Amino acid sequence: MSRVHTGESVLSRGVRIIESFGVGDASLTVSAIARRSGLHVATASRLIGELVGFGWLERDGRRVRIGVRLWEVASRASSTVELREAAMPFMEDVHAVIGHHTQLAVLDDDEVLFVERLTAPGAAVNYTRIAGRLPLHASSSGLVLLAHSAVEVQERILRNELHVYTDKTIRTSRQLRTALAEVRRQDFAFCAGHIYPETTGIAVPIRDPNALVVAALALVVPNDDQARTWIPALQAAARGITRVMATISPPGSE
Amino acid sequence: MSRVHTGESVLSRGVRIIESFGVGDASLTVSAIARRSGLHVATASRLIGELVGFGWLERDGRRVRIGVRLWEVASRASSTVELREAAMPFMEDVHAVIGHHTQLAVLDDDEVLFVERLTAPGAAVNYTRIAGRLPLHASSSGLVLLAHSAVEVQERILRNELHVYTDKTIRTSRQLRTALAEVRRQDFAFCAGHIYPETTGIAVPIRDPNALVVAALALVVPNDDQARTWIPALQAAARGITRVMATISPPGSE
Repeated sequence: MSRVHTGESVLSRGVRIIESFGVGDASLTVSAIARRSGLHVATASRLIGELVGFGWLERDGRRVRIGVRLWEVASRASSTVELREAAMPFMEDVHAVIGHHTQLAVLDDDEVLFVERLTAPGAAVNYTRIAGRLPLHASSSGLVLLAHSAVEVQERILRNELHVYTDKTIRTSRQLRTALAEVRRQDFAFCAGHIYPETTGIAVPIRDPNALVVAALALVVPNDDQARTWIPALQAAARGITRVMATISPPGSE
Repeated sequence: MSRVHTGESVLSRGVRIIESFGVGDASLTVSAIARRSGLHVATASRLIGELVGFGWLERDGRRVRIGVRLWEVASRASSTVELREAAMPFMEDVHAVIGHHTQLAVLDDDEVLFVERLTAPGAAVNYTRIAGRLPLHASSSGLVLLAHSAVEVQERILRNELHVYTDKTIRTSRQLRTALAEVRRQDFAFCAGHIYPETTGIAVPIRDPNALVVAALALVVPNDDQARTWIPALQAAARGITRVMATISPPGSE
C-alpha cells in the first residue's frame, strides 16, 4: 500500500488489470478483475473506466473484455507479427497438403508460446490455441526451441520437474538431454504420443537470415506409420519462411 | 504538468508510450517514443523501463519494440480473436480456390480495421495489412460494415469529406447513400477500381448467430470480367463462418 502514490504503482496496476485476462477469458466482471489483480473493487473500477476510455478495454454489458484497440497496437509492431507474416503463406501450403493442425511457436519465458495455428473446420480441438502455451519438454515445438536456446534456459528446464502427460512424455533430465541432442543432429523433433497417446507432434526450426533459430514450425498429426512422411514438407516450408524473412530484414541487419 | 502526480496521468502516459508505435514501426528509439508521446525523454525512459519489466515492451539494441507478452494478452481475449478463429479455415479455403488477397475486417472507430489477411508468397503487396485501416467509404469491406452500422455512424461518415483515390472512388454523400442501399439489397459490395484502377474489392457481411453483421469478408482481385464470379464462393464462406460462430456462442447467449 505504500506504493499507492508512486507512478510506478499506477502503471503496474493498469498492467495487472489487463493481465488478469487469461486464456479463454473472453470477458470478466469488474469484481473478478479486482480479485485477480489484487485491487479494491473501487480502484479496479476506476482504472477499468480509464482503460475503456483509451479503447484498451471494452464494456460488454456488465462484463469487460480486451479492446480491439489494444489488439491493434500490439499486433502492429510485435516481432511475432513479422514472423507470422512471413510464415503464414507457407503454413497455408503445408496445411492444405497435409490437412492437420499446423502451428507456429516461439520461446517465451521458458515456455512454448503458440503465435499461429491453422486447423480445419470441424477438426478435433487441439490442446494448443493462438496465444496458448505448453511446457518446453513436452511438445515437439518446445524441444526444437529448447535445443537451440541459451545454455541457461536449458539448465533451468533440466533442473525443473517435468510434467508427465502420457507414458511417452519425456520425464527425466537425462531423457531430455538425449532428446535435445537428437533434435540438433536430425534438425527436427518427432514426439509420438508425448501429450496425447493418439497424436504425434513434429517440429522443425525456423532460422532467421542470420541462421539463428527464432521459431518452430510444427504439425500435430495422428500417431501412425504415416507421420514421418510429413517431415520433408515441413522442412521445406521452414526454409521458405527464412527466405521470405531475408527479403524483409536482410542478413547482418539489426 | 498539473497532472503529474495523479494516477490517471501515469496510466495514460503508459498508454501513450505504447500507442506511439504506428503501422510499420517494428522498433523505435527512446527519443522517438518521447517525441511522439509528448513526454520528456527522462520520463519516457523511466516508463519504458517499467514496461520492459512487465514484458510489454522489449529492448532491441538501442531501440524498443512491442513485447510478445503484450501481444499474447491482447490476443487472448479480444473479440477479434474469436471471430478470427471461426473465420480462418474458411478464409483459407477461399484463398486456396481463388488465389487472391482474402481479408477479414471489422468496424472500429469509424474506420475499417483489417484483423486478418491471407496473401500468396511473392504476391503484390496489398494496401492493407493486418491491423491496418482504411476509410469506410472507399473499400468494399467498409461499405458492407457501414451499410449495417448504426445510423449515427452512417450520418457521421456522410457528413465527412470523402477521400478520393481514383476516378471510381465514391466521393459524394449521395453516391454513398445509393451504394449503401445497394449493398443492403444485394448483400455484397463490389468496388471495381475504387482504390487502385487495376483492382476490384468484393466484400460480403459476416453475421453472428443473432444475425447481426459483425465483420466483412473481402477479396482483392484483378479488375476484370471474371471478378463477379467469386461472389458466391465468398457468400458461402461467410455462411460457414456464422455456422462455426454459433457452435462457439449459441444464438441468444451473451
